[in-house]
This record gives sequence, structure tokens and C-alpha cells, in this order.
Amino acid sequence: MSTVNIKPLADRVLVEPAAAETTTASGIIIPDNAKEKPQRGTIVAVGPGTKDEPLTVKVGDTVLYGKYSGTELAHEGKDYLIMREADIYAII
Amino acid sequence: MSTVNIKPLADRVLVEPAAAETTTASGIIIPDNAKEKPQRGTIVAVGPGTKDEPLTVKVGDTVLYGKYSGTELAHEGKDYLIMREADIYAII
Amino acid sequence: MSTVNIKPLADRVLVEPAAAETTTASGIIIPDNAKEKPQRGTIVAVGPGTKDEPLTVKVGDTVLYGKYSGTELAHEGKDYLIMREADIYAII
Amino acid sequence: MSTVNIKPLADRVLVEPAAAETTTASGIIIPDNAKEKPQRGTIVAVGPGTKDEPLTVKVGDTVLYGKYSGTELAHEGKDYLIMREADIYAII
Amino acid sequence: MSTVNIKPLADRVLVEPAAAETTTASGIIIPDNAKEKPQRGTIVAVGPGTKDEPLTVKVGDTVLYGKYSGTELAHEGKDYLIMREADIYAII
Amino acid sequence: MSTVNIKPLADRVLVEPAAAETTTASGIIIPDNAKEKPQRGTIVAVGPGTKDEPLTVKVGDTVLYGKYSGTELAHEGKDYLIMREADIYAII
Amino acid sequence: MSTVNIKPLADRVLVEPAAAETTTASGIIIPDNAKEKPQRGTIVAVGPGTKDEPLTVKVGDTVLYGKYSGTELAHEGKDYLIMREADIYAII
Repeated sequence: MSTVNIKPLADRVLVEPAAAETTTASGIIIPDNAKEKPQRGTIVAVGPGTKDEPLTVKVGDTVLYGKYSGTELAHEGKDYLIMREADIYAII
Repeated sequence: MSTVNIKPLADRVLVEPAAAETTTASGIIIPDNAKEKPQRGTIVAVGPGTKDEPLTVKVGDTVLYGKYSGTELAHEGKDYLIMREADIYAII
Repeated sequence: MSTVNIKPLADRVLVEPAAAETTTASGIIIPDNAKEKPQRGTIVAVGPGTKDEPLTVKVGDTVLYGKYSGTELAHEGKDYLIMREADIYAII
Repeated sequence: MSTVNIKPLADRVLVEPAAAETTTASGIIIPDNAKEKPQRGTIVAVGPGTKDEPLTVKVGDTVLYGKYSGTELAHEGKDYLIMREADIYAII
Repeated sequence: MSTVNIKPLADRVLVEPAAAETTTASGIIIPDNAKEKPQRGTIVAVGPGTKDEPLTVKVGDTVLYGKYSGTELAHEGKDYLIMREADIYAII
Repeated sequence: MSTVNIKPLADRVLVEPAAAETTTASGIIIPDNAKEKPQRGTIVAVGPGTKDEPLTVKVGDTVLYGKYSGTELAHEGKDYLIMREADIYAII
Repeated sequence: MSTVNIKPLADRVLVEPAAAETTTASGIIIPDNAKEKPQRGTIVAVGPGTKDEPLTVKVGDTVLYGKYSGTELAHEGKDYLIMREADIYAII
């Protein structure tokens, strides 16, 4: 988990996506452009929440989210996703 | 029913879809790519609910849901669907 | 009217569609693929309703609904429609 | 005005559309497929209304409504339109 | 301004559109199919308003409205527009 | 700033768009059909506001608004835009 | 950070986008038309907020926002973005 100087606003959280797996369950190596976009990541920053939506997740949680959740955000050479907590499905 | 270490957020539930039936009512074997996507499954995890939406279903319930409900979620080699309880039609 | 072990959630009801009429008013037999999808059915199960939406229809009511209302649900060899009560137009 | 055994639910009303005029204002006979869909009809049944929307129209009112308002409903050989009262523009 | 026996429902008003101008500001006569659809009209009937939306315009007001506001309504050989008061931009 | 006898309804304001600039910042003359639609204008009339939305802008304010805000309204040979105050971005 | 005489209305803020980077992380110079549209900027003016949405960001904050957030606004030869605070993801 990285530390970032990004303060999400309101009910947003910053997620560091897990690296895409390069091998399938059956051991076949996936060429780069066929990799599935990861759906798992780690919370690296959370917003203050809103009066209506206090946040449930916290920094360090591993979360699952949809393939198309969030907005990609490049910051200091790393790729993050910033999304609303409502876009997160579950903590694992 | 499997046990999973996935904690759905808010009003979401995790469903393990029933295996698609490979035989029609009249006994004809369906080739793989014609199988209907299952609409029946078992609840394997439930979120804490929300103030507005306490959950009705519980782990172990067999539920019916629409063909296009939920988001597919692969976890430890198994396929699940995560959906809002509102996407579930009925308990059977 | 059939009896089913399906418990609709919230404000949903389960409808058993009436068989499509195979003869027009003027006595002409309609070939199978020209049959109009039935818009009339019988309530076979109702949900508990919601705080905001107590249900009006009850099991046994014959109801009218739009051509595209509800979701088809096959269960034990029969076809049902599950829909929100708000999708029902009238009781006859 | 016909009498029907249809009880609309909530804020719905049942309208018997006026027959389409077969002659234009200037006396020209309109062939069948060029007839304008009628926009005028008679209320033949009204729902109980809702707490938020008590109904204004009553059985027997002649009303005007948009070309695309309501859902066609064939019942005992006659064609009706079922629509929400909010789809009715005016009483004439 | 004509008098009509049409009673708009709720927050609707009946507008008699002004005749489209057949001459441009610079005096050029516009052929019929290039005429701009009028955006100005006279209120000929108003609904009772709603609890939330008491009406501001009154019969006789000349009003301006958008090119695509309202629904055309032919009644006794004249063309009207019926629209919600919210579709009216201004009184002139 | 012109004076107009147009009274906007509710939270609408009438804007007289500034003339489009015919020269770019670097002094190049722009041919007519390449001119950018102006985004700056002067408030020439304001509505009474609504209970929920009292108006902030006043007659004489120079305002900025989006390229596609408002509806064009020709009145007495001049072109105006009528828009909701919410479509105005800023006062300059 | 520039000073501007633009007063955003309600919950809007004025952002001066950071110059697009002309070199990639690995040192390759990007030709002009391949530059990524900046997602980082500085707040140069803020609106008064609304009763429901007091503003969090303040003049001088460096913020991150989506690629398609806001409306471009050219003013005195400079390009700004005006957007609702809700379109800002994070402060850095």
C-alpha cells in the first residue's frame, strides 16, 4: 500500500488497483493486451464523508469494485482510481 | 453453499448462481453455448443494510433474480454475482 | 390458479399470465407466432409491500397489465411474470 | 359511454377513445390509414387516486389527451386506453 | 383572443399561437414552408394550478415559449398548444 | 444594455448576448461562419424568483454562461437568450 | 495562480488548469496534439456556496478533476474551467 498526498472530497475514496493477474487459473500466461482489468484494490485515501454518507471503508481495506467503476487518476507515476464509496461492492 | 470472506457493503448481497440446467424440461440435452444464464441462486453473504433499507434476505436463502441482475465477481476460482437486494425478485 | 412456493420481495407480485387467445373475436384461428402476448393474468403471490407502498391486489385477483410489464420467470415448468404492483393497470 | 367491469388502480383512468373522424374539416374523406389517432375520449372508469394524487376527472367527462398517451387495452371486443390522470390535458 | 370550452387540468394552460410572420424584418416575403414556428401566443384558458404550483399567467396574457413547447391540440377547427406553465418563458 | 418589455417567469433571466468578437487574440479576422458563439452577456430582465430559488443576478450584471445555455428569443428585431439563473456560471 | 474578476455563482468554482506536461514519465517529448488534457488545476475563485452545499475547497487549492469535468471559459486571453465543486475529486 502506498502513501499519497491526495485528499478525496466528500464520499470519494482513492483506490490503488491490484496488479492484473498474468496467469489464468489453469496456468496459461495471458499476453498483455488480454489481461482483465483488475477489480480488486486497496484503499489508500478516504474523504471526510458527507452528512448523509459517512464512509464505511478505511485506509488499508482490500475492496472489490466493478470493472468500470471510478475514474483513472495518474499521480506521481502511479495509477489510481478515484470513486465514490457507493461504487465499492465489498470488503474482502 | 460456499463460505466466502467477502463482506458486501450497504444493501448489497452476494449470490452464488445455481448451475445452469443442462437438460430441458422435455429431456433434451442443451449444448453448452445455448444454456440459459441461471436466474436462481443462493445468498452467500449480505451487507449490513442501510438505515433506509434493512435487508430481508439472509445467508442460505434461495432467491430468484433477473437475467441481467448484478455484477459478475470472480473470487478464488468461483463466480459470484453481487447485487442490491432490490434486484432480487423473490425467495423460493 | 396455481399455488407456488415463491415469496415475492417488497412490492412485487407474481402473475400467472392467461393463455393467449388462439381465436380472434371474429373466429379466425391465429397461427402460433402471431398470437398477441397476453395482457391479463391472475395474481398467484404477493410481497409484503413496503412502508410506502402497501399492496392493493391480492392472490386470486385477475389483473390487466401492459404488454411489456414484468420479468418472465420460469419455475417448475410454468411461466410466470414477476412485476411491481405499480406495473398493474387494473383489476377486472 | 360504455360500462366496464375494470377497476383502474391508483391514479389511473380508463378512457374510451372517440372514433377517429373520417372526414376533414373541408369535407374530404380520409382513407383509413391516414386517419389521425383520436385525442379525445370519455372517462369510463377511474382509480381510487392516491394520497398524493386525488383524482379530478370523473366518469363521463370528455377529455383531451396527447397522441401517445396511455396504453391500449382491448377488453370484451372494445379498445380502451388506460393512462394516468397526469396524462390528461383538459376536460372539454 | 378566442373563447374556448376547454378546461386545462392542474398546472396546464391553453395557448393560442400567434400567426407566423410572413415577412422578415427586412421585408422579404417568406415562402410557406420556411416560416418559423411561432413562439408567441395568447393564454386562452388556465388550469386550477396545483398546491405546489399556483399559476402566475392569466387569460389574455401574451406569452413567449420555446419552439418545441407544448402539445398541439386541434379543437373546433383551430390549433392550440397546451403546455405546463413551466414551459412558458416570459410574459410580454 | 437595452430595455425590454419582457417579464421572465419564475427563476428565468433574459440575457442580451455580447457581440461575437470578430478578431482573435492574435489579431486574425475571423470569417463570419467561424465565429465562436458568445458566452458573455448582460442581464436585461429577471424573473421574480421562486420560493426555493431567489435570484442572485440583477439587471445590468455582465454574466458568463455556457455555449449551449438558454433558448434564443427574437423580440423586436433583437436576439436574446432566456435561461434559468442556474445556467449562469459567473458574474464578471 | 492568477487573480480574476470572475465571481462564480452558487456552488461553482473557477479552476486554472495546470499546463499539460510535454514530456512523459520516461522522458519522451509528446507532440502537441497527443498531449493529455490536464486533470490538475488551481482554484482561482469560488462561489458563495448554497444552503445545501457549503464549499470545501478554497482559492489556492490544487485540485484533481476528471478529464471531462467543467466547461471551458476563455477570459482575458486565458483558459479556465468552471465547474461545480462536486466535480472535483480531491485536493492535493
